[in-house]
Amino acid sequence: MMKVLNIRTSKRCEFVDITPLVRKVVAESKVKSGVCLIHVPHTTAGVIINENADPDVVRDIDSTLRKLAPEDGNYRHMEGNSDAHIKSVLVNPQTFVFIEDGKLVLGTWQGIFFCEFDGPRHRKIYIKILEG
Amino acid sequence: MMKVLNIRTSKRCEFVDITPLVRKVVAESKVKSGVCLIHVPHTTAGVIINENADPDVVRDIDSTLRKLAPEDGNYRHMEGNSDAHIKSVLVNPQTFVFIEDGKLVLGTWQGIFFCEFDGPRHRKIYIKILEG
Amino acid sequence: MMKVLNIRTSKRCEFVDITPLVRKVVAESKVKSGVCLIHVPHTTAGVIINENADPDVVRDIDSTLRKLAPEDGNYRHMEGNSDAHIKSVLVNPQTFVFIEDGKLVLGTWQGIFFCEFDGPRHRKIYIKILEG
Repeated sequence: MMKVLNIRTSKRCEFVDITPLVRKVVAESKVKSGVCLIHVPHTTAGVIINENADPDVVRDIDSTLRKLAPEDGNYRHMEGNSDAHIKSVLVNPQTFVFIEDGKLVLGTWQGIFFCEFDGPRHRKIYIKILEG
Repeated sequence: MMKVLNIRTSKRCEFVDITPLVRKVVAESKVKSGVCLIHVPHTTAGVIINENADPDVVRDIDSTLRKLAPEDGNYRHMEGNSDAHIKSVLVNPQTFVFIEDGKLVLGTWQGIFFCEFDGPRHRKIYIKILEG
Repeated sequence: MMKVLNIRTSKRCEFVDITPLVRKVVAESKVKSGVCLIHVPHTTAGVIINENADPDVVRDIDSTLRKLAPEDGNYRHMEGNSDAHIKSVLVNPQTFVFIEDGKLVLGTWQGIFFCEFDGPRHRKIYIKILEG
């Protein structure tokens, strides 16, 4: 069964730590061993796994992505959010985390972040858990 | 069981919308709920999920990737396609899409694109469906 | 069941071909058909699938990543390894490979590389195999 999470972002570019939300879905599933797959059904957003201890890390990721895909680049798509589409491709709209003993298996410093690149918006996150 | 799709690209760099091909594989599998995993067995190609409504979006993605990994960069690999290897790493040769009610679960604007970075060539796409 | 591999890297940035290690895990699992998922539980490392025939290919990938996320960039995170976090996001800390007839299904030129961006360190690689 697929679970749908709803979140609300508050800025144009924002990294939202969704680790607690994903942990809750895994706990409710009662699955002891498996894989938790995450898919963001948007083309101007993404999901990453990286450090959630020092918030400066995602700030540095954000500022580098702005250099790689500048908001005011010379783009053809007329909606003014080509940079957001490109960032979505670079970070990917998908990730997965293993489940062991009913818990997410993340590294000591790893958290799961929803990446908003064209907010603020209401966004969805799809989660599916495979046992195994 | 793994399904192999064969496609033929027509340019050096090209984004081919393979959503209809993947939908067909999923329909034929009769799987009602699960995950459709896609792997491109090439080192100078990739697969992304992004907007397939306005073709200018993938043109902007393509032109930005050309800036991040220029064809005429100062590379050591002598085959003249280092840019293509780098782009393959940046976009990834893999993706997955959930299946619910026997159908691919993609966002309103999402399509699946095979990314050719060193064509034109005959290319393969591997697909596997896990139930769950 | 999740399998944990331990490796030791020897440089700050290094691409270690882990294909033989992953093949061994798959062989020992006795799984004939499925998916081998790989997760790196670190925020300054990653895993990619790309050419392992000519070592110049990963050198070119490495040198381009250094341009996209320079070590001496203007970062806020004070540990001096923001470039490594950014590279981890760009290449991803995760990948998967299909298994058919008890073997990894990789393209002719594809190998699996652990990407060290902030070594030398002791590192872990988590592997899980789903049948299907």
